[in-house]
Amino acid sequence: MAKTAISPLAIKLPELPPIAGVRLAAAAAGIRYAGRTDVVLAELAPGSTVAGVFTSSKCPGAPIDWCRAALKSGKARAVVVNAGNANVFTGKAGTDACTMTARAAAQLFGCPAKQVFLASTGVIGEILPHQKLVGALPGLHADLADTSWEAAARGIMTTDTFPKAATRTAQIGEATVRITGIAKGSGMIAPDMATMLCFVFTDAKIPADALQTMLRAGVAASFNCTTVDSDTSTSDTVLLFATGQAKHARIPAADGNAARNRALNDFAAKLNEVLLDLALQVVRDGEGAQKLVRIDITGAVTAKSAKRIAMSVANSPLVKTAIAGEDANWGRIVMAVGKAGEPADRDRISVAVGGTWMARDGGVVPGYDEAPVVAHMKGREVGIEIDLGLGRGRATVWTCDLTHGYIDINGSYRS
Amino acid sequence: MAKTAISPLAIKLPELPPIAGVRLAAAAAGIRYAGRTDVVLAELAPGSTVAGVFTSSKCPGAPIDWCRAALKSGKARAVVVNAGNANVFTGKAGTDACTMTARAAAQLFGCPAKQVFLASTGVIGEILPHQKLVGALPGLHADLADTSWEAAARGIMTTDTFPKAATRTAQIGEATVRITGIAKGSGMIAPDMATMLCFVFTDAKIPADALQTMLRAGVAASFNCTTVDSDTSTSDTVLLFATGQAKHARIPAADGNAARNRALNDFAAKLNEVLLDLALQVVRDGEGAQKLVRIDITGAVTAKSAKRIAMSVANSPLVKTAIAGEDANWGRIVMAVGKAGEPADRDRISVAVGGTWMARDGGVVPGYDEAPVVAHMKGREVGIEIDLGLGRGRATVWTCDLTHGYIDINGSYRS
Repeated sequence: MAKTAISPLAIKLPELPPIAGVRLAAAAAGIRYAGRTDVVLAELAPGSTVAGVFTSSKCPGAPIDWCRAALKSGKARAVVVNAGNANVFTGKAGTDACTMTARAAAQLFGCPAKQVFLASTGVIGEILPHQKLVGALPGLHADLADTSWEAAARGIMTTDTFPKAATRTAQIGEATVRITGIAKGSGMIAPDMATMLCFVFTDAKIPADALQTMLRAGVAASFNCTTVDSDTSTSDTVLLFATGQAKHARIPAADGNAARNRALNDFAAKLNEVLLDLALQVVRDGEGAQKLVRIDITGAVTAKSAKRIAMSVANSPLVKTAIAGEDANWGRIVMAVGKAGEPADRDRISVAVGGTWMARDGGVVPGYDEAPVVAHMKGREVGIEIDLGLGRGRATVWTCDLTHGYIDINGSYRS
Repeated sequence: MAKTAISPLAIKLPELPPIAGVRLAAAAAGIRYAGRTDVVLAELAPGSTVAGVFTSSKCPGAPIDWCRAALKSGKARAVVVNAGNANVFTGKAGTDACTMTARAAAQLFGCPAKQVFLASTGVIGEILPHQKLVGALPGLHADLADTSWEAAARGIMTTDTFPKAATRTAQIGEATVRITGIAKGSGMIAPDMATMLCFVFTDAKIPADALQTMLRAGVAASFNCTTVDSDTSTSDTVLLFATGQAKHARIPAADGNAARNRALNDFAAKLNEVLLDLALQVVRDGEGAQKLVRIDITGAVTAKSAKRIAMSVANSPLVKTAIAGEDANWGRIVMAVGKAGEPADRDRISVAVGGTWMARDGGVVPGYDEAPVVAHMKGREVGIEIDLGLGRGRATVWTCDLTHGYIDINGSYRS
């Protein structure tokens, strides 16, 4: 793995207070990396509920299969995560590694194996040495502490240059609950699940089906609106655990119920904030990223069309290299709009960079002021606005620039 | 524009004999570049027929609009091509530039303006100084010669590092006809028309509708099976001109007719060879390309599915950077298969590099010989074979690796 400096877009790890019912530990099991932690164990209090959203890849890793099956009960007691080996495309050995790891953890917690969730990230196609994982579990179990958030955030990193976490409080009735998430990811970031692992924990007491509904909506508006390189991982995982330790009124059972929606209104909003915060941290750590780019589309025929156009711009290598070169090349932006295949009328398109409209209604704005555009392009955060002039569909997505750093990191990852 | 060395994948310009009814000239009109030719004029003998295939972009350039309209008559007397300015997203000024240029050329040849075809390539969003183009036409007209093929191939280049041409002879009945094409392009190369201009000429006498049928099929099997960076240009153009100067039996009029198909059988095959030769030259000149990559998919559920999977692999930045790093990272190949969204069964996928099967039926091949794989990856031409084990659908596409050169060229193009 190429050595890389911390991303210039990195943000500081926030303070992460304990969450009742969650304990964590990290250890160095030597899965792939020397001299760093690479296995994380999280314990959830008995009675915890869980929701999950996974990669859309047709070739998912063995841990994804495991989690999808485990999710059916809606109950969770532990999560085991390793970095350095994705346990993908490993055939029966991959399935066996999942079973062995889950069973060993289940024995420590005295729970069914299906209440142990698993996630792996790293190289594809190499057999996961699950003996090392299993061997590390007793030590991890002994080390569990409610203060080990930073250690957990660091233990799941691969090509990440900084640990990622976000935390909020939310009101459920009179009670204040906490929502804290950690995430990793910086390459293979693409629509339909950014390539990453994300674990969110709360002390709220929420039925699994309500968690699932909120998580799915939150991921759609956060991780699925980001892209680093258009490559979708085989291992994308977002898990949301609720320990039920907070004291608040019971959440009504039936999904879609108005009383339930009211009770969870603030929680859902804060959960979305945590997810978006984490998703943007992943983009900020995009491999080689020097600039965070926000793309706002308005005037598309539908929201879906707007999203597709936004992603076409966000994934265009020519747009991303232009941004790396601090060149407000709106011609390439128009090219990327045109190739999306969505309704667009060349003579109605307008493009702004950093709030300055450079092109309006299909042509350059005569004598527009270049100075603020040049200044904006030199900054760390770049905003592109595109109005299609056709309808009311809008979308916002985030990406990063494409630089020599991306080639450095990915041209020598395995060697 | 960044200065770049000639692509290591470049091939030598073939010898290009005259074609009866075609004369060419190139000149330096100072559109954008200093000290090089940037305008090309080609004359077609009276009675020449024409076919065309254009970009699928929803925001095509003004010259595309012009050509689509001009194509309706099926007749051509001249082509005017400029490099350095794409005349795209230029509003009414762009349309006016087309009309002025075509009228000026038409006056020189004494033909309707609609028999003059136009193509522009280069920067988007800047007004084309058509006065310079029009001013260069009389000189070009005076210089027309049937030997100026290399000058024409060079005059249409933008970021190309070598001129591109291909030529074949074909039999129509007892007669031998010639087919010669020139092309340019090295960035914005993507499915549904590689980003490029391509002009093919023949002395055969073929009705416009027969030319169109053959051209469409030929482009589908050549340019539309190549990708450099997934970005689709607003200016892609392939034009095929037939001067009708060769002496051969009349081609039957009705399209789809068995007698016509028989008569044009060899011509169509040789046309496809010219188109594929040119398409691969464009990939060989892919911006920053160090390796030409061929991807063969077999065992997909349909040919269409195979093509989509092949393009997903060919466009994956992680696969392309791995190839640049001479790393046979089949895990990333499987990732790219999975993200295509097409039917795939993880446990039936097999992957070979350079003919060595590294993964079979969803897992690594135990003890496969790495030596030939390593040696193959160090070469200039890399072959990837993927068998999905599901059906009989197959496809072949070509791409290049993603290197620092791509970032160098595109991070500073306008500055």
